[in-house]
Amino acid sequence: MLAVEHIGIAVENLQVSIPLFEKLLNTNCYKTEKVETEKVETAFFRQGETKIELVASTDPEGVIAKYLAKKGPGLHHMAFAVADIRAEMARLAAEGFTLLSPEPKPGADNKLVCFLHPKDTNGVLVELCQEKN
Amino acid sequence: MLAVEHIGIAVENLQVSIPLFEKLLNTNCYKTEKVETEKVETAFFRQGETKIELVASTDPEGVIAKYLAKKGPGLHHMAFAVADIRAEMARLAAEGFTLLSPEPKPGADNKLVCFLHPKDTNGVLVELCQEKN
Repeated sequence: MLAVEHIGIAVENLQVSIPLFEKLLNTNCYKTEKVETEKVETAFFRQGETKIELVASTDPEGVIAKYLAKKGPGLHHMAFAVADIRAEMARLAAEGFTLLSPEPKPGADNKLVCFLHPKDTNGVLVELCQEKN
Repeated sequence: MLAVEHIGIAVENLQVSIPLFEKLLNTNCYKTEKVETEKVETAFFRQGETKIELVASTDPEGVIAKYLAKKGPGLHHMAFAVADIRAEMARLAAEGFTLLSPEPKPGADNKLVCFLHPKDTNGVLVELCQEKN
């Protein structure tokens, strides 16, 4: 793990939450991006070397819609930058953590990503992400 | 706001969670610290410029014990480093955010801290922290 790449926050509505986080963080949202495969739309803010990623659902059956229905809006995941995602996935699997996909998947912001099951990580949804070449 | 100073994670038991996060993050816990006024014990890990702070309760009536009873372990708060906590508190209050204390309080890791009410911040408990001189 190299650094906290971003903190993911589940929100109901980006049009409401983007201006709210612009006031909170005192910085402008610099990008929004849909990730069709994950049925989400994301909005990014820089804060030092870390990003804040707002995540809204684009589909009432999507994982974020289900999360919001169960837990409401709030902190959703933390993501770590890694240099070699496959090596880190192998290390963590060997340590007994459960990978939510056997291979890295395309994520927002030009990344390859893999999530770890929160049952093994103290209830925290952890994402690994590696910048695509 | 300068940077994400740390991510706070609520845990039941530091003796279980410290070795778990040492495996997850592939780095050693570098400090534990009790904050008597908050009825918590904390454990810190460095990850780039950001820290991961595990927070356990030292009192069954403490805020973390109550949080765990209601929501279970997991992501608890995100903390931003600020250069001048009183100026940032004034800016955020003027923007309509609710401060959970009228003055900065002593926090873990040699900090002055203030929390914002999650009702105004998309369900996210936000902490401001300034290094004590």
